[in-house]
Order: sequence, then structure tokens, then C-alpha cells
Amino acid sequence: MIQVAVLGYGTVGSGVVEVIEKNKEEINKRAAEELNIKYILDLRDFPGDPYEDKVIHDFNTIIEDPDIKIICETMGGLKPAYEFTKQALLKGISVCTSNKELVAAHGPELIRIAKENTCNYLFEASVGGGIPIIRPLNYSLTAEKIDSIMGILNGTTNYILTKMERENASFEDVLKEAQDKGYAERNPEADIEGHDACRKIAILSSLMAEKTMRYENVYTEGISKITLDDFKYAAKMERTIKLLGISREENGKYFAMVAPFLIPKTHPMAMVNGVFNAIFVHGNMLDDSMYYGRGAGKLPTASAVVSDVVDAARHVGKIIKCFWDEEEVAMKDIKTAEFKYFVRCDGSLHEEALGFFEQVSIVDANVSGEIGFVTAPMSEEEFEKKAAKLGIISRIRLMD
Amino acid sequence: MIQVAVLGYGTVGSGVVEVIEKNKEEINKRAAEELNIKYILDLRDFPGDPYEDKVIHDFNTIIEDPDIKIICETMGGLKPAYEFTKQALLKGISVCTSNKELVAAHGPELIRIAKENTCNYLFEASVGGGIPIIRPLNYSLTAEKIDSIMGILNGTTNYILTKMERENASFEDVLKEAQDKGYAERNPEADIEGHDACRKIAILSSLMAEKTMRYENVYTEGISKITLDDFKYAAKMERTIKLLGISREENGKYFAMVAPFLIPKTHPMAMVNGVFNAIFVHGNMLDDSMYYGRGAGKLPTASAVVSDVVDAARHVGKIIKCFWDEEEVAMKDIKTAEFKYFVRCDGSLHEEALGFFEQVSIVDANVSGEIGFVTAPMSEEEFEKKAAKLGIISRIRLMD
Repeated sequence: MIQVAVLGYGTVGSGVVEVIEKNKEEINKRAAEELNIKYILDLRDFPGDPYEDKVIHDFNTIIEDPDIKIICETMGGLKPAYEFTKQALLKGISVCTSNKELVAAHGPELIRIAKENTCNYLFEASVGGGIPIIRPLNYSLTAEKIDSIMGILNGTTNYILTKMERENASFEDVLKEAQDKGYAERNPEADIEGHDACRKIAILSSLMAEKTMRYENVYTEGISKITLDDFKYAAKMERTIKLLGISREENGKYFAMVAPFLIPKTHPMAMVNGVFNAIFVHGNMLDDSMYYGRGAGKLPTASAVVSDVVDAARHVGKIIKCFWDEEEVAMKDIKTAEFKYFVRCDGSLHEEALGFFEQVSIVDANVSGEIGFVTAPMSEEEFEKKAAKLGIISRIRLMD
Repeated sequence: MIQVAVLGYGTVGSGVVEVIEKNKEEINKRAAEELNIKYILDLRDFPGDPYEDKVIHDFNTIIEDPDIKIICETMGGLKPAYEFTKQALLKGISVCTSNKELVAAHGPELIRIAKENTCNYLFEASVGGGIPIIRPLNYSLTAEKIDSIMGILNGTTNYILTKMERENASFEDVLKEAQDKGYAERNPEADIEGHDACRKIAILSSLMAEKTMRYENVYTEGISKITLDDFKYAAKMERTIKLLGISREENGKYFAMVAPFLIPKTHPMAMVNGVFNAIFVHGNMLDDSMYYGRGAGKLPTASAVVSDVVDAARHVGKIIKCFWDEEEVAMKDIKTAEFKYFVRCDGSLHEEALGFFEQVSIVDANVSGEIGFVTAPMSEEEFEKKAAKLGIISRIRLMD
């Protein structure tokens, strides 16, 4: 029997307990040993909960119990998750986490500590919720040189954009509804300003590069400036708007960003709606592949944590290969990245706009007093200069 | 250094050699040992080929060389692949294969022999070409009870259906063009009559059930009867037509079939076009997930074979878990399966048709002399009886 402790009895933590209980038979067979949840660490008590007798408040009880082989860290945040994780790994206890903040901030250090102590730090649930993506990158795409990854990595923003498009509802109205339904946080900044997606693309990029991409170095824009007029223009272009995390390698340097993009309606990612997420991976032999599923939610995320628990149980005393060094990747300057841009500006600037931007194609969506157009491909730097000179209302990048 | 032999220097076999050569650095790092192709077995000689000196004609040279640890079986067909594979596994040599006929016919026996001889029989490339699906099922979805799998599993038929819809070209014309381009075989029956997809859904179903689903027991229809008029009706219904392999578990019994289905244009699988494939997996915790990519082709398929080689190299002398017993699954009788059906019949039968089928909704696609309609859900048995009595032109099942 393998003894497991769960840190944090919130949404994901209680999901982990539920998954291990509900799919007990399958999980124990696949882990080749019976899993037992011995402790649940939380500040709170849970009177009446079927697992109330497992709830403890002192992390030392866990770390000092030699029976504990695996910890599920589902607390979130850096403090005290970072310290707890480090202490566990130093004792040779494997840690399975859904904590993307911690993985993005200290992943490679924790992976190294795990290796040094012949245990594993696993983080399938940190990206894409229930979508298997970390393990496919580590175990399945081993014959590939992966050169780009792109994803719809945040369920809240995808839900908002989908609703805006389908129901012609404003950003503010949909956000409020999403908050009322519990799909968005009361303080929604981490989601809507792209910070959550930023951490996830940094993790994926690091696995692609096998080095560290710091999330602080990823240029990030959110969706709070996207309006219904943007969707009107998008429809005219047979496109939709998605918040994408993109990352690619070019001659040994890495370029990454999070921003809203106009993508063609025929792109497989255009079909990824509501709280669903998808990750597009391009390899030099495989070409395109895509992984799609629920990017968040109690049970899908918990299922991913438990798949790590099964993996950890299969590898007690053995190291699971993971190539993510602490060395930082060389980043390409965002200013040199090239895109086509969809631009809106005041109608009176029509002639000037045509002069400023080459190969402009006009998009007429009947928005009064303004014109919309798509530029030729150009660097961010060049675009910013021209846009500042002209004075524009807004711009969204295009992705083909 | 790990010595590897490749059986069959055709499309996939030469792709395997190319992938191992081109991505040498990445692959050797991930395998944790250098891989070297020592032999290539083929009946032919390849004068001028950079690997001509590795080409041999006698399988015994490979099997009697104690240095060979891994064999890539890319011959296809049952003879002599079955015998060669068995001999290799009995000697403790791991075998990585792209041969779906062999996996569907003898997979569980070969997996058992591999286990008994502490080596591995790996078959990632047998389903979905370059799409990682076998390893995600075995390694990633370990916390799930998977209850249904559905897929676009054949590139040739998906290419044909996509072209018919987009270019309004007849089945015969597109098939001829696909044959001229090399996307379809001169004898295309295995693809267009669904036999290839049938083997793949049988393999996936077996992994879902952890027992054996014999492909001979999977009801199979191809796409050769699909006409442009069907696509006219489909468009009116805001649907498209895809050849699907479907499989699901119901109270311990399994139901599987391969047939063309009308699916909504908003379904993620509707976006899977041309030679791309996708596999939809439903788990009890994860809900829906999908895996998308190139379902065939030299390099994507070879990449999948080589990912198995890396896995085999990481596990020399160790058994990789795979739950697929030789015991056969209990199958549900196809007659009891329920669908809605889209039916075309002679226009003169309008009144009779409405009397025969409850809750009929008419689909008017301006096809002269006939009517099209969608029935209420009913069992295959009930439908067949009514359809025979009425005398119909054709029917296609609906999937939501």
C-alpha cells in the first residue's frame, strides 16, 4: 500500500480525494499497488466530511511520517507551497502538483532537487487542466524536435470570448455572469490580463527548450480591451478571436507571447469553445498535433493530478526523465517578431492609413466613424512606430 | 550504445531511419543511450542508398546477434511479420511496430510473450499515425474510467470526404485523384470499405476494455455509397459527413462500429479535414478530450515508431505496463444500438414515410424526385424493419 497526503482541501484537493475514491479499482490496478490517502492538510476543519478524520493542520506530521511516499500539492500560490514541496522532495517524497504559479516560478529547481533525492516532481495538472500534455511532451514526442507550441490555455477568457461572439454580449456583461457562475474569480485579473496563460506557455516553452523560460520574460496582453465591434470585424474576415499563448524556436532563440489573435474559422483552434482548452504542438517530423479538453474544473484537474500519482507510484525509488534545466533560454526580442495586424482607426484617417501601411486590405463591418484594415506583415517595432504616428483605436494580431 | 534493426525498408521503415538520423541529438539524449541502426531487413537491395551496407536479407542474422536490443517492424501484413515478431520477443528483443493488422490480430498474445520474456511490444504507430494516443491511454489517462472512444481513424477516406464536400466532386473522381497522388492505394478497399478504421477502433477499444475486442466482431460500413446529394442534405442540416470508428462501454458490454456519420459542423471533429485524423476519448472524470494530428504519412508514422524505440531503450530489461488481456470482451448486439437516422426515399412515399417513422423532421435539399428526413432515435433492428418495409434509397446515422 502506498500512503498519500493531500495538501489543501479546496476545489482540486477535494477532487483528488474524489477521483481516487471513485476510480479506486482502475487506479490501484494501474499503479500496481493500493493507494491510500492518509492525511489531508488544511487550515480548516471539515466536520461531517467523510474524510474529516484525515484532516490535519501540521505539515510536520506528514513530512515526519516515513510511510508517506507521495504528496499532492493542491494549495496553489507560492507560500507555503514552495517550502512544503522542497521539504518533501528533500525527504525523497514525490510531489504531484496542480500549482502552475509554483511550477513556473521554481519548476527546474524542484525537478533538480527531486532528482538528487531519487523522487519525482510531477506537474501534469499545471497546464491544460485535464488535457494530457506534459506527459505526451516528455514521453510521446521523444522522436521530435518541437519548434513551436501554441495554445488556448485559459478557460475563463475562452468562455468570455465564446459568449461575446455567440451572444453578442459585452465583455463586462459576460465577465459579470462568469463571476456569478463561479467560472471567473472575484478578482479576475490573473485570467483576463493573461497572467495565467503566461505561466502556462512559459512552462510549455521550457519543456520544448529543455531549459528555463521565465514567465516574467513573456510579453503578455489580456482580453479586457476586446469589444463587440472587434467581433463584427472578425466575422467579416471569417475569423474569430482567441487568447493564445504562442512560443517558437528560431535559430536557437525563443520567442513567446500571450495576446488575443484573430484566427481563421477553419483553424482547429477556432472550434475550441467555452471552458475548453487546446494545445497545438508542431514537430519537425510530426507536423501539427493538437491536444484538446477541459482546461480547468475540479474533476478534470484532479484526474491529471491523480495520473501523476499513478506515475509516481509506478516509480517509487526511480527517477522519471524530465528535461528542464535551470539554465535560461535565449529570448528573441518581441520587437523583431513579425505579424499582420488588424487595425481600427478614425474614418477621417482613411487616406493617411493607406499611405502608412503597405498592402492594406480594408475590412468593412459597418462600424460608424471608423475604418478597419489588415496590414502587410511587419515587425512589432515597425508597426508600433507607424501606429503611433497615425493614431489608431486598436489593433489585434492575425494568426494563420 | 543500443543496436536497432529495422524490418522492411519501405515508406515507414525508411522514415524510421530518417527520423533517427535527423533528430539524432534529441533522440539519443532522451533515450539516455546512443541508438544505432545495425541492420535493415528487406528482400530488395538498395544500391546507392546511404544505408545500403546495412541492408540484409536473412532475419536469422538479426535474431542471432546478441547486440540487437530493439526491432522496428515496419513490414505490414501478417506474414512473416507475426513469426518474426514472436521470435524476437521470445529472445527478449523489444519490438516497435506500425503494423495495425498484426496488432489487431495478435496484439494481446504478443504483449503476453513480451512480458514473459521481460521485453516490450509497443505499437504507438498502429493507430493515428503520428498522433500520440496509445501512450496517453496507457500512461496519462490512468486516473480515468474511459467509457467511450470515437475517431476519424483513416486519412484516405477523410481526404475523400473533405474533397467531395469542398469541391463538389464525386466519390469516384476524388478516389481516382487520390490514387494518382498516392494518397489512396490502387486497391483501395481496405480504406474505403472501413477495414483499416475497423482494426484501429478494435485496438483502441481493447485498450479501453483492457481485454480483447476482435476486429471481426466490429460492424463495419465504408464510404463508397456516399454521394454528393448526401452532402447537399448534410449542408442543410448544418452537418458534415465523417467516417467514424465508435466504441463505448455500457454495463460491462462493449459496442463498436465503423460507419459514415452525420456530425454537427460545430463538433470539434468536423474541423478534422484532409489527411488529418482525430481521436475523441471520454472519461468519467475528465469528460471529453481529443487528440489530433497526421493520421498517416512517412515521417509522422515513423516518428511514432521511434518514440516507441526511445521508450524501449529507456526500459531495456524492464516491462512497460500495458493492460490488454487475451480474454475477449462481451459485445453488445449491434441490433440493439440506438441512433437517429437520416433517410432518403422516393418522393412518392412521402405520406407512408411519415406514418412509418415517428418524429420525422424533413430536410429539403432540392433533390428532385425524393424526400429526405431524420427519424426519432430507434434501434438498428427497428430501423431496418421499417426501412425494408418502406423501401428507402439510403440512410446515414446521426451523431451529436
